[in-house]
Amino acid sequence: MLRLAVVGHLARTSGDFNLSDMPGGAGRMDVLCRCVSASFFLSHEFRRDVECFLVLLGEPDAPKIIRFSGEHLRYLSPDERSAGSLIKKALSIPVGTEYRESTPGVSVRRGGVSDIVKEYPFAVLDEGGTDIRTIETLPDSYILSDHLDFTPIEMDLLAGRDQISVGPCAIHANHAITVLHNEIDRRGAGW
Amino acid sequence: MLRLAVVGHLARTSGDFNLSDMPGGAGRMDVLCRCVSASFFLSHEFRRDVECFLVLLGEPDAPKIIRFSGEHLRYLSPDERSAGSLIKKALSIPVGTEYRESTPGVSVRRGGVSDIVKEYPFAVLDEGGTDIRTIETLPDSYILSDHLDFTPIEMDLLAGRDQISVGPCAIHANHAITVLHNEIDRRGAGW
Repeated sequence: MLRLAVVGHLARTSGDFNLSDMPGGAGRMDVLCRCVSASFFLSHEFRRDVECFLVLLGEPDAPKIIRFSGEHLRYLSPDERSAGSLIKKALSIPVGTEYRESTPGVSVRRGGVSDIVKEYPFAVLDEGGTDIRTIETLPDSYILSDHLDFTPIEMDLLAGRDQISVGPCAIHANHAITVLHNEIDRRGAGW
Repeated sequence: MLRLAVVGHLARTSGDFNLSDMPGGAGRMDVLCRCVSASFFLSHEFRRDVECFLVLLGEPDAPKIIRFSGEHLRYLSPDERSAGSLIKKALSIPVGTEYRESTPGVSVRRGGVSDIVKEYPFAVLDEGGTDIRTIETLPDSYILSDHLDFTPIEMDLLAGRDQISVGPCAIHANHAITVLHNEIDRRGAGW
């Protein structure tokens, strides 16, 4: 099982955002939607062995965590609006500290970075880390940030974790997920 | 200069499509929008040394080619609607066989696969090709298909070209562009 967590620093935490204005009013929710798509889609298949967590820290009801579970996920298409629509539904139901399913394979709960980092041994995907191609045994959990850097408080929470880089340039979070998948796919196929 | 051409077999060729229905009424225009975004965006920069060509073969006025030129490109954000909006504008102006600019850095003309393959020495990005990591000198022009395979006629037009694969799995066209960029970035940075 590959686990990916993406921190959305400004991402809206209620379901009242407009699917046609995700970069604006929804706090760069478009970035997170592309991360969901990159996490799961192959050309003619779906990566069932992936979980993708979105940690939403924006107005008005932060923090919330949405979990996309590939094993049970339904109704997701590769386009941004499709992921956005499932996120809207997840953000429209009442939440507590336990996951509650909003649509098949999508669940939501209260929680932030300090909670999720206790639950999985995330490596940090960051352009300043060790080149992924040189790492003998890859971790199976990764955390990365949206278009903003991790805050100093988040950096403290992530101190001591493996830092892994997919390449020499700072790239978008969804692109980093795509390159990570490529490296894992290659190793799995013996390339 | 890196040149990328993506063939949109069903992609609408008039500007009357709805930005909120790009996977449906616009003939999977969402795929092409993600390819444009993957072609140009770094985290905090823009890849000016890239040209991205969309070859649109859908109803009602095929074929058309839209060229995105990184050097002059403006008004492009990473989200699908942003690229879709520039495509709509390009498809709304009269076209001939010469490129005509619709917005800064975006031009459109009549033309199809048989035209563009004469103009650049495209390698074919395809999962059945030679592993990109084993190729000593990478080409600077690549053609790839949207969610559909190249047709037999297109395969004939592309016969004899280098076939290059970015990994062992069949992945979406935008993901292939992202992995291609990663390989080129690594070589450029001496990784």
